[in-house]
Amino acid sequence: MSAFVRNAWYVAAWQHEVEAGRALSREILGTPVLLYRTADGTPVALEDRCCHRALPLSMGRVLGDRIECGYHGLQFDRAGDCVAVPGQIAIPPGARVPAYPLVERDRFVWIWMGDADRMDPADIPDFHWLDHPDWRSKPSYLHIRCNYQLLIDNLLDLSHLPFVHPTTLGEMGVAETPAATERTPRGVRTTRWIVDRPPPPMLAKLGGFAGNIDRWQIVDFIAPSAVILDVGGAPTGTGAPEGDRSRGMSNRNLNAITPETRTSLHQFWAQAHSASLTMPGITEGMHDQVRTAFLEDIAFLEAQQKQNEAGPGAARIDINADAAHLQARRLMDRLREEEATAAAE
Amino acid sequence: MSAFVRNAWYVAAWQHEVEAGRALSREILGTPVLLYRTADGTPVALEDRCCHRALPLSMGRVLGDRIECGYHGLQFDRAGDCVAVPGQIAIPPGARVPAYPLVERDRFVWIWMGDADRMDPADIPDFHWLDHPDWRSKPSYLHIRCNYQLLIDNLLDLSHLPFVHPTTLGEMGVAETPAATERTPRGVRTTRWIVDRPPPPMLAKLGGFAGNIDRWQIVDFIAPSAVILDVGGAPTGTGAPEGDRSRGMSNRNLNAITPETRTSLHQFWAQAHSASLTMPGITEGMHDQVRTAFLEDIAFLEAQQKQNEAGPGAARIDINADAAHLQARRLMDRLREEEATAAAE
Amino acid sequence: MSAFVRNAWYVAAWQHEVEAGRALSREILGTPVLLYRTADGTPVALEDRCCHRALPLSMGRVLGDRIECGYHGLQFDRAGDCVAVPGQIAIPPGARVPAYPLVERDRFVWIWMGDADRMDPADIPDFHWLDHPDWRSKPSYLHIRCNYQLLIDNLLDLSHLPFVHPTTLGEMGVAETPAATERTPRGVRTTRWIVDRPPPPMLAKLGGFAGNIDRWQIVDFIAPSAVILDVGGAPTGTGAPEGDRSRGMSNRNLNAITPETRTSLHQFWAQAHSASLTMPGITEGMHDQVRTAFLEDIAFLEAQQKQNEAGPGAARIDINADAAHLQARRLMDRLREEEATAAAE
Repeated sequence: MSAFVRNAWYVAAWQHEVEAGRALSREILGTPVLLYRTADGTPVALEDRCCHRALPLSMGRVLGDRIECGYHGLQFDRAGDCVAVPGQIAIPPGARVPAYPLVERDRFVWIWMGDADRMDPADIPDFHWLDHPDWRSKPSYLHIRCNYQLLIDNLLDLSHLPFVHPTTLGEMGVAETPAATERTPRGVRTTRWIVDRPPPPMLAKLGGFAGNIDRWQIVDFIAPSAVILDVGGAPTGTGAPEGDRSRGMSNRNLNAITPETRTSLHQFWAQAHSASLTMPGITEGMHDQVRTAFLEDIAFLEAQQKQNEAGPGAARIDINADAAHLQARRLMDRLREEEATAAAE
Repeated sequence: MSAFVRNAWYVAAWQHEVEAGRALSREILGTPVLLYRTADGTPVALEDRCCHRALPLSMGRVLGDRIECGYHGLQFDRAGDCVAVPGQIAIPPGARVPAYPLVERDRFVWIWMGDADRMDPADIPDFHWLDHPDWRSKPSYLHIRCNYQLLIDNLLDLSHLPFVHPTTLGEMGVAETPAATERTPRGVRTTRWIVDRPPPPMLAKLGGFAGNIDRWQIVDFIAPSAVILDVGGAPTGTGAPEGDRSRGMSNRNLNAITPETRTSLHQFWAQAHSASLTMPGITEGMHDQVRTAFLEDIAFLEAQQKQNEAGPGAARIDINADAAHLQARRLMDRLREEEATAAAE
Repeated sequence: MSAFVRNAWYVAAWQHEVEAGRALSREILGTPVLLYRTADGTPVALEDRCCHRALPLSMGRVLGDRIECGYHGLQFDRAGDCVAVPGQIAIPPGARVPAYPLVERDRFVWIWMGDADRMDPADIPDFHWLDHPDWRSKPSYLHIRCNYQLLIDNLLDLSHLPFVHPTTLGEMGVAETPAATERTPRGVRTTRWIVDRPPPPMLAKLGGFAGNIDRWQIVDFIAPSAVILDVGGAPTGTGAPEGDRSRGMSNRNLNAITPETRTSLHQFWAQAHSASLTMPGITEGMHDQVRTAFLEDIAFLEAQQKQNEAGPGAARIDINADAAHLQARRLMDRLREEEATAAAE
């Protein structure tokens, strides 16, 4: 069984990372991928391994719409077909590298590395907050040396906030308040309302809350790669739990998780906000606070990965807060099993 | 068959390394171990791996007598039992981590990681020199990337002194004088008297010997982890070989060897002396000379480990000086075999 | 089947690297080798692993004609026989380390690590340019982390020059001109004439060519380790293709490739020239240009090695320019198979 769900859209890059004339190399689902943009602006993704002598094509040059291998000068077009071999006229049969369909949406470049007949751009998860005039965010990226499932676990169980992020997002009410978990058509949602509690440091600082707040954390996992957090708070008594967030601060923590290998991942993320759009430095400040928290997570995730590798058979117990990510793991296992079964038929 | 003798006491730490309020992590016999001290001064050893999501507990906080996991805030008591889970009242069944018995003796914290019914503190090797008013020493520690048996070999065969340690402990008489080997109730003893020879650099410098000396090296290996060297010298003709060491300098080189993994170890050591206790700097000076020698050993031990890994099947010959450590290896093999047999029954 | 052809002469070192009184350690064909020179100037090669406790003998001292192990002082003579053990008179039976025959020729020290009855110094490839009054060169060395076959491929297919070495050796005519390949008694020869084209940067700079030139590249692979390139150019129309090189510049790029492990190699090389012997700095300048190019190759070779290790089963296509090294690979496979068959008999 593959370590990854393959019939899915994954973020390969932020749009601005893929440029005309420049080769970008990034390993995705265990495969080296070359990304560049043609002269007309179309993004291209090819396996980053020349079919001749296996060199990374990204060591070569982008020549207009083509990539030229840096070793012997073979040229490939955007479809991955070899179209020129120096010193000979005929192109050898089979001279091509795999090309992967891309879709640009919501500032992301999405890649499809699964079966062609399963591909449907309608399946791309909605990240409209990244590219909507009512919202603002700063695109960000982190590389983490752990299995992608550990990060999904982390984002689906925010009870870790007061322990791992005491200076930014943490407040004991989060761990003490149970969350409700439900299945969604393509994933899992977990909802927690922390009512009449002090704001965590970040909301106190950037939300300008003086007294207690009602805080919400609605986490949507859309398998296999999107985790969207609807998070924020409003002064207690202003009606947020009943649906009126107008006095509060509402943010979206947006994550696209792309496995690099079995033991490492790309986290494309942003913290989007719709309030205080005219406040100087608010977008940057919010990004920096969340980045501080994410760096704390990385220390834990990578330590967890090391322990899992050192003692994979260690017995474990589950706690109530695990409900959401246990469901997510069951879903992911099922998706991978279905693909394995389909591949075997 | 395990790579280690498990039914034995090993030094986990120097007493002063284990502090109240501070988590110390150390891998022992291939297992990560957390060490801390409760408010009343009792040392605690737990497996350094949370039973929930495998995080090292040492990444969390010591809260009085408990350790709190840094990820989700589970708390464990000194027995390894989970006693608090944030956000829920019931503790999940089986929520515990292994706890290891500890005994503090002779400035060491000794750990038992074997079968509970085999444990007997009377088996702890005698290191009273570390904590006796007639003796003085400086506690020291070295980490070596080799199998622990290589260090036992090294300490049981001092014929290497003139070659590896020419500026401190080495003098050709050591290699040219045969040693006598005998079995002891729990180990191997090797005895060498080097009579009427110049003192090695360290003894010349710190022992104040002008002429030739009679030098003794009595090495006791107490399986599986203690190597105690009774070493020193006295002016030739003053009767040391006959039992009168009163004119000489008598030291103890004390080693507790704790396997970290199959290919690395902890060496807890000290050089204890009873002479010249009022001489300024003597303890430090003696420590520094021996440390210089031990660092030379490390270069050889780690090179030997690399060669063994590169070519484990390489043929080898033995020499007379190997007698003691060959006996020690046979003893260690037998102990490990007995444990394997007992485990299989 | 061994990863190496063993019944062959390989360069172990440049002559000047092997000195009296100094131990040089170098891994060759996966075996650690100690090199030193006796007092009378004879070079010695022994396995760099003491037969007693596996220590690298190179960590010890060269004492005249002998090497003394740095750990316990065993001494070995130039034949690898143990001739002294401290503290005992009898030498243990079998106390010896393998010794390897060496031949000094053309400034190289050649080593034989194969079957004794197959050894014949007449088989040493001719590198007389290194030590001939009509030629001058600077001895050089590179360590490359790739399988040796990748470097042989590289040197037998110079169509990569315009892509990998545009500032030194590259000119598009090389890639556009087909080469002729032929088998030789002990290897493969490939010949390319690039007629009436601009000189590449290095020849323009150091050869003083103003206009177009006729450039030749005659590459001789002598299995398994020598690659000798007869390269140069002459002004177009002066008759070089017909055999008159008197108006041109003729160089020899000389390579002895010695596998270190399956995934790394030693490249002993020099750029020899016979023209402009009195021009100041010409030898150094030529060396530096080629070294710049070889460093560019290393980046590609090591990237190629990594890709091969990551995806060994990746499909590949061949192009016309591969003809020579495909023949070389077939020859090498045959040589290794013959050795495997002989060993099995």
